[in-house]
Amino acid sequence: MTTANNKEYRSWIEVPANSDFPIQNIPFGIASPQGKSPRPVTRIGDKVIDLSVLADFGFFDDLEIDDLSVFYNSNLNGFIELGNKTTSKVRNRLSEIFRKENTQVQNLNSQEFQDTLLYNIDEVKMEMPVFVGDYTDFYSSIEHATNVGKMFRGNDNALMPNWKHIPVGYHGRSSSIVVSGTDIHRPKGQTLPAGAVKPLFGPSERMDYELEMAFITSKNTKLGETVTIENARDAIFGLVLFNDLSARDIQKWEYVPLGPFLGKNFGSVISPWIVTLDALEPFFVEGPEQFPEVLPYLKQSGKNNIDIKLQVSLQAENSKEDVICNSNFKYMYWSNYQQLAHQTVNGCNINVGDMYGSGTISGPTPDSFGSLLELSWNGTKPVKLSDGNTRTFLNDNDTIIMRGWAENEDYRIGFGECVTKLLPAKNDDRN
Amino acid sequence: MTTANNKEYRSWIEVPANSDFPIQNIPFGIASPQGKSPRPVTRIGDKVIDLSVLADFGFFDDLEIDDLSVFYNSNLNGFIELGNKTTSKVRNRLSEIFRKENTQVQNLNSQEFQDTLLYNIDEVKMEMPVFVGDYTDFYSSIEHATNVGKMFRGNDNALMPNWKHIPVGYHGRSSSIVVSGTDIHRPKGQTLPAGAVKPLFGPSERMDYELEMAFITSKNTKLGETVTIENARDAIFGLVLFNDLSARDIQKWEYVPLGPFLGKNFGSVISPWIVTLDALEPFFVEGPEQFPEVLPYLKQSGKNNIDIKLQVSLQAENSKEDVICNSNFKYMYWSNYQQLAHQTVNGCNINVGDMYGSGTISGPTPDSFGSLLELSWNGTKPVKLSDGNTRTFLNDNDTIIMRGWAENEDYRIGFGECVTKLLPAKNDDRN
Repeated sequence: MTTANNKEYRSWIEVPANSDFPIQNIPFGIASPQGKSPRPVTRIGDKVIDLSVLADFGFFDDLEIDDLSVFYNSNLNGFIELGNKTTSKVRNRLSEIFRKENTQVQNLNSQEFQDTLLYNIDEVKMEMPVFVGDYTDFYSSIEHATNVGKMFRGNDNALMPNWKHIPVGYHGRSSSIVVSGTDIHRPKGQTLPAGAVKPLFGPSERMDYELEMAFITSKNTKLGETVTIENARDAIFGLVLFNDLSARDIQKWEYVPLGPFLGKNFGSVISPWIVTLDALEPFFVEGPEQFPEVLPYLKQSGKNNIDIKLQVSLQAENSKEDVICNSNFKYMYWSNYQQLAHQTVNGCNINVGDMYGSGTISGPTPDSFGSLLELSWNGTKPVKLSDGNTRTFLNDNDTIIMRGWAENEDYRIGFGECVTKLLPAKNDDRN
Repeated sequence: MTTANNKEYRSWIEVPANSDFPIQNIPFGIASPQGKSPRPVTRIGDKVIDLSVLADFGFFDDLEIDDLSVFYNSNLNGFIELGNKTTSKVRNRLSEIFRKENTQVQNLNSQEFQDTLLYNIDEVKMEMPVFVGDYTDFYSSIEHATNVGKMFRGNDNALMPNWKHIPVGYHGRSSSIVVSGTDIHRPKGQTLPAGAVKPLFGPSERMDYELEMAFITSKNTKLGETVTIENARDAIFGLVLFNDLSARDIQKWEYVPLGPFLGKNFGSVISPWIVTLDALEPFFVEGPEQFPEVLPYLKQSGKNNIDIKLQVSLQAENSKEDVICNSNFKYMYWSNYQQLAHQTVNGCNINVGDMYGSGTISGPTPDSFGSLLELSWNGTKPVKLSDGNTRTFLNDNDTIIMRGWAENEDYRIGFGECVTKLLPAKNDDRN
């Protein structure tokens, strides 16, 4: 058990009841305090802690980090590249110095230090935590794949023949992954409306979100190397919430035979705090049984899934938030470790900061479906909102809020929010 | 007409007959001279020219470049980000100072300058010219798409309904794009042999190359912005040869419904010299007629294709090279400009250094098919080699050499070679 997870610890920073960020979390992010450049930070309660200031004052000097510049960069890639062993030490150090009984930080006799160390969360702008070199999106929820299969191929052929053998995935666009709070315009594109003989061009009329989580890698490998399932834990730094916005009508017309493209790459939104696998350690659970048996390179045993409660809210303009989905990350058929072992089994190289989306996380019950496509069953069962309106797909100016947290009787480790508003299509004069 | 393309120009550097690199080419690359770090270079004949040395001695001082550090970087991204207008000026300057009648460089009275400016091509190691943030692979040759369709879906449904409306494409893996001279191990993965009920794991038995070209973008756009077809020329810097190595058996089992993944991402190989669109200007031709008419955002007129002769050789171990394919980039149904307009029409943002593969470039005749899949018609018509052996797919230690050049009565603008050897699968003990 990682030191920092000790349930007895309390911080001298106030932590509101039910906060996602007790001292047992210590997530990592990048924040820009007003008028200042982006920098590595952590968070306890509602306070954002500037790691560059702690580095200035020597708090990481004895952790065998050759290059302390990682605490001053505008992304976390350099920090994460230190490796899980070292970043765990940093997390333990942060836990130590912010604990109630530790007065080192509180009593440090420097006005500059005391003035610049802590910010309220509403005083900073959260930024993209990592530079994403490559992004893969998996399709690893059996409930989601089955739902989609039933809708488009009927009950008898719901799952493709490869689905239970391969953690099916595809490459996505890195450049358009943005941080929570970034609003996205409804994309335009080609669609083939039912009955039409030729495609039309215009704003998507079937805008959807997908509730996902994504893990971020902490290793660089060389081309030809593999990350075995046994080594996968050590190659993953942590997780974020991931909203894989999707234009269903664009996707439907374009995706055969080479997969989703413009239906997905106009914007994907992540939560700003990377919660480490260390912090999530107490919440690992066994995943669903895998049958038929998987090939040896995918074999795993023990607890490889994580019990993270997930929630999606929809907030229409000038209306209040409605929770429209309650799901859980533990439902995943394929684990993160299997996904990474599969990604690299052919020698594909990985880099620090790569992002790997889980695919839509649906659960077994209709209220746990992770997309409007499933909740409204391809538009046939409108979802009721508390203001009396309904949705089959997203309206302009709808805001989607995703939340995720693991909890036990002692504390709650959360991800904060992943928020994005769907803006109307841009009104340019083309087409 | 760009100044540097003047057919009368000759260089004081010797240019062998039929060289790909007359003074009218001036491509850009990154080279490491022995014992030195990677740096931006160009090439005339067989001489590699160190741009950092020219920058040291002020040859670019009057070109309105704010930050000359781009001539010292280990990739060309910063240089390309200067924009096509400025990089054209650099190309014109290089043309000017290496012209026969210009003695500035030859007479510069510095031993250091004279000792470090020029290298023979065999004295340097060519490196990846750019850092690739995102990579898209299109599927834009109608002959290739039709061939593949006939093989797998029959003559009547060869082209998918979307193919003539959309420049179909998908996202690929950036991390595994490597430079010519990098050898690649035969990948292992899952395949479902004919008649089998469950997949096997092992080295691919259907290894193939794909003859492609790729363009590299020279602009950064913001999420939500589009690059219109009219503006696409200005957002493209130049082209390279691209070998999209493919494991057909892995791809076949994995690719439904989300597209190619491990069948492609174990390594793609590019030629080291980026030939600018400026240099290729004299070789633009009209592409094939597009019917049915494309949607307005894809409409183009005039010369949008490029007449680039393409050749693929296969060299078995201890054997000589056999040319097995003669194709041409001019056959593409969809132009680079249409591809880029499509990629961004939904607001997907692009970055300098992004790479966009054309898809396999097959021509109308069987000797112009750009992959072994097509040449051997899915393994049914073995390709004869001059040593008496045949190939349906690649053997271990086969080397694939791609060449490309545009030519007219005055000169030849070439890409050099894109070379890779298929090494045996790694002999690790897993599976």
